[in-house]
Amino acid sequence: MRVGMFPGTFDPVTSGHLDILHRALQVFDRVIVAVAHRHQKQTLFSAEERIEMIRDSISKGDAGRIEIVPFEGLLVDFARARKVAGIVRGLRFVSDFEYEFQMALMNQKLAPNLPTIFLMPSEKYTYLNSSLVKEIVRNGGAVGGLVPPAVARSLKKKLGRAERQKT
Amino acid sequence: MRVGMFPGTFDPVTSGHLDILHRALQVFDRVIVAVAHRHQKQTLFSAEERIEMIRDSISKGDAGRIEIVPFEGLLVDFARARKVAGIVRGLRFVSDFEYEFQMALMNQKLAPNLPTIFLMPSEKYTYLNSSLVKEIVRNGGAVGGLVPPAVARSLKKKLGRAERQKT
Amino acid sequence: MRVGMFPGTFDPVTSGHLDILHRALQVFDRVIVAVAHRHQKQTLFSAEERIEMIRDSISKGDAGRIEIVPFEGLLVDFARARKVAGIVRGLRFVSDFEYEFQMALMNQKLAPNLPTIFLMPSEKYTYLNSSLVKEIVRNGGAVGGLVPPAVARSLKKKLGRAERQKT
Amino acid sequence: MRVGMFPGTFDPVTSGHLDILHRALQVFDRVIVAVAHRHQKQTLFSAEERIEMIRDSISKGDAGRIEIVPFEGLLVDFARARKVAGIVRGLRFVSDFEYEFQMALMNQKLAPNLPTIFLMPSEKYTYLNSSLVKEIVRNGGAVGGLVPPAVARSLKKKLGRAERQKT
Amino acid sequence: MRVGMFPGTFDPVTSGHLDILHRALQVFDRVIVAVAHRHQKQTLFSAEERIEMIRDSISKGDAGRIEIVPFEGLLVDFARARKVAGIVRGLRFVSDFEYEFQMALMNQKLAPNLPTIFLMPSEKYTYLNSSLVKEIVRNGGAVGGLVPPAVARSLKKKLGRAERQKT
Amino acid sequence: MRVGMFPGTFDPVTSGHLDILHRALQVFDRVIVAVAHRHQKQTLFSAEERIEMIRDSISKGDAGRIEIVPFEGLLVDFARARKVAGIVRGLRFVSDFEYEFQMALMNQKLAPNLPTIFLMPSEKYTYLNSSLVKEIVRNGGAVGGLVPPAVARSLKKKLGRAERQKT
Repeated sequence: MRVGMFPGTFDPVTSGHLDILHRALQVFDRVIVAVAHRHQKQTLFSAEERIEMIRDSISKGDAGRIEIVPFEGLLVDFARARKVAGIVRGLRFVSDFEYEFQMALMNQKLAPNLPTIFLMPSEKYTYLNSSLVKEIVRNGGAVGGLVPPAVARSLKKKLGRAERQKT
Repeated sequence: MRVGMFPGTFDPVTSGHLDILHRALQVFDRVIVAVAHRHQKQTLFSAEERIEMIRDSISKGDAGRIEIVPFEGLLVDFARARKVAGIVRGLRFVSDFEYEFQMALMNQKLAPNLPTIFLMPSEKYTYLNSSLVKEIVRNGGAVGGLVPPAVARSLKKKLGRAERQKT
Repeated sequence: MRVGMFPGTFDPVTSGHLDILHRALQVFDRVIVAVAHRHQKQTLFSAEERIEMIRDSISKGDAGRIEIVPFEGLLVDFARARKVAGIVRGLRFVSDFEYEFQMALMNQKLAPNLPTIFLMPSEKYTYLNSSLVKEIVRNGGAVGGLVPPAVARSLKKKLGRAERQKT
Repeated sequence: MRVGMFPGTFDPVTSGHLDILHRALQVFDRVIVAVAHRHQKQTLFSAEERIEMIRDSISKGDAGRIEIVPFEGLLVDFARARKVAGIVRGLRFVSDFEYEFQMALMNQKLAPNLPTIFLMPSEKYTYLNSSLVKEIVRNGGAVGGLVPPAVARSLKKKLGRAERQKT
Repeated sequence: MRVGMFPGTFDPVTSGHLDILHRALQVFDRVIVAVAHRHQKQTLFSAEERIEMIRDSISKGDAGRIEIVPFEGLLVDFARARKVAGIVRGLRFVSDFEYEFQMALMNQKLAPNLPTIFLMPSEKYTYLNSSLVKEIVRNGGAVGGLVPPAVARSLKKKLGRAERQKT
Repeated sequence: MRVGMFPGTFDPVTSGHLDILHRALQVFDRVIVAVAHRHQKQTLFSAEERIEMIRDSISKGDAGRIEIVPFEGLLVDFARARKVAGIVRGLRFVSDFEYEFQMALMNQKLAPNLPTIFLMPSEKYTYLNSSLVKEIVRNGGAVGGLVPPAVARSLKKKLGRAERQKT
């Protein structure tokens, strides 16, 4: 049985992430979604909330083959501890590619036998990322189709509250 | 059992291709190396020679899990006929990425359930491609380390002969 | 009245070109589609066939605001002779952008008051270009949705014939 | 009458922005310069100061066809409320292009009939952006030619003051 | 005698920086390493610590041809004051290139006779930068080979302390 | 005394090449311009004509420090035979960078102590290359400022003749 690890911040999970996760399940028998704690960079949602939103967004049929866990520290250490066959990353744009290339080469230096597997989302999601989604909600826009319904609700609740605190 | 397909022209196979093939075997149970006939673009080596050189270059340990076959026509048709779980491509540079992205999106349109899996070679091979190797040999340079020994010999033989024909 | 010029080889016109043309009509009162003769680079279809295919592909409603003409020589000379307000180009990928940027800067040097206007097609067409379409048809694939129906038929007829001539 | 909208932070307006604005006036009958409030990202100048500097920088001849307004919220909502024919953006570099491409695709998803029109500044301004200008002034350099004279004075006054507060 | 200037933040110096410095010494008779104070961007190490680490990392043989100095203000002013023949910068990735291109064009505008000389590190260091190194140490990873031994020790000490302060 | 080598096809030399050559002379004591024979790729001008045009284009003041020579075979072999301190290349665009990066890494593998030095032309020449210049002349456009006057004349003569042969 081959296990892949799909790491990320998922702040929050988008339809693009779910598209990549779905494709990863065609390649691996199981996929561990590794949700980064991110001490350095402030997140909108707590790790618990981010995990919860992913859990609420995956289909029943896939759930048995997906594990969602928080992680801290070095990704390659965590991946080796869990004996995964590869790290899964989504690729959308050239800028993505460069950052991802750099991370993949560095991880390869730290763990030579742990390949990074890049998957491409549907062209519907090439423009999509979590920051853009937050910016739209913050400005009162609708994000249906860009994130799962439960995430859309959480974003509205959270960013509505944040805006009120500002005033 | 999950099978991946690694398509290419392999004119000739380089150490970078073999690095990608080796990584693909960590992700898939078996890998089919699909060698394109290329009616449109002239190749230095015939499809038979290109297949032969790949065969001579893979390690004994991996050989049982690798199949090397010629192919014509549309890649996605061939991949579906062989029921592969994904198409494997190597990624090196941004320009690569764009061409590969375009092909992957097009293939995804033609065959929605056939993901393209991108793997990254060792940083030792980021600058390497078949054209560069041919250019070096044509100019009398040594390509040890860049291609397997048997390929280096074939290149020297072929391109030496080609040069003589010119004069 | 502001007129835009949309130059290209259109060998053949794709749904992506038509998407750009449609957007150009939101910006300009009229659009001149300038079909390049291309002495240097061989085309699959003659200029007449390429013009004919564009004519057959535009909607009745838009036809009154579109003029389709062949052109030779320097684009900026032709654009100035026709007194257009700007040159329209579609942008899809980074590589596009660089080539387009270079052409736009050069044209700006040759004709300082003739801006190049870049428009972006729907994300459905980000992967689409005429070469890819020809490659798919050549390999027996279906291109419905990628080109207008009349173009699909012409491609099949032309490339079928071409293939037969080869054998 | 066709109206274009040129949105941005303009903190402060540069000669590159004015070059784009000038080209936009060749394409549209009128241009609305939409100055973003930017709650998220701190600006050096207030929205009022930024608007004032643009007003002081446009030529008398163009002023009758330009409207400068602050805006908050989602750009596409504002653009639709003002019934503009397209959104104008300047393109300089590949990194620009990617960010701009992403925004344009997202805006197109949010407002399908509102095209984004990309214009390219003179090659004199390919290296120019507001951050670079601020960095030069902060370090005591001269920015003549890079920004209009009034902006150069405001920058010197503002950043001189800021530096003094530091010590 | 020709002198080059190699400016940077060096927070901290990596093996990639040292590789570039070594190559710069093949082109210039002497190289001034100019360590930026960086009022704007917070650094992990003080300018004094950063200079000290570079000093400890250069080989005895090269030391006589290298000068390490702090600098504030505009780079081109400092470079002209020191009468250098060119500014040395390392190039690794496309994103690098764009930022570097922009800086080089701006510096060329500010000081037309001061060329920027780009050098490329060994492919071993294409993925390497100071931020990545700090992230690895912060997460408990080993950075041997990526930075000189003295820098590895300083990083461990500094980032260990920083982490403790957090809790 | 440090010697740099500036290799290229120079078919024909442009104002951008001359700008790079001028900058190289600020870094090196002497520069060898190495004009490639290019058996593989057809050139418009013979090697003799290309050398002649460079000779006619350099300023009297610089001529004593410049040597113009034809070369065949592997660049690094030629550069080592001439004991140069570095290879000079011009950088303009991202696509340039990738090709150049690949060549530089390959050359570095073939000759580890021969650095490639990248220089950037004036922003006036960012869009300029020999192919574009030929295309403009072929279409009857003027190339004053883009190439030296003697080259403009040669281009007109050569491409006028070529066109006549076609008809």
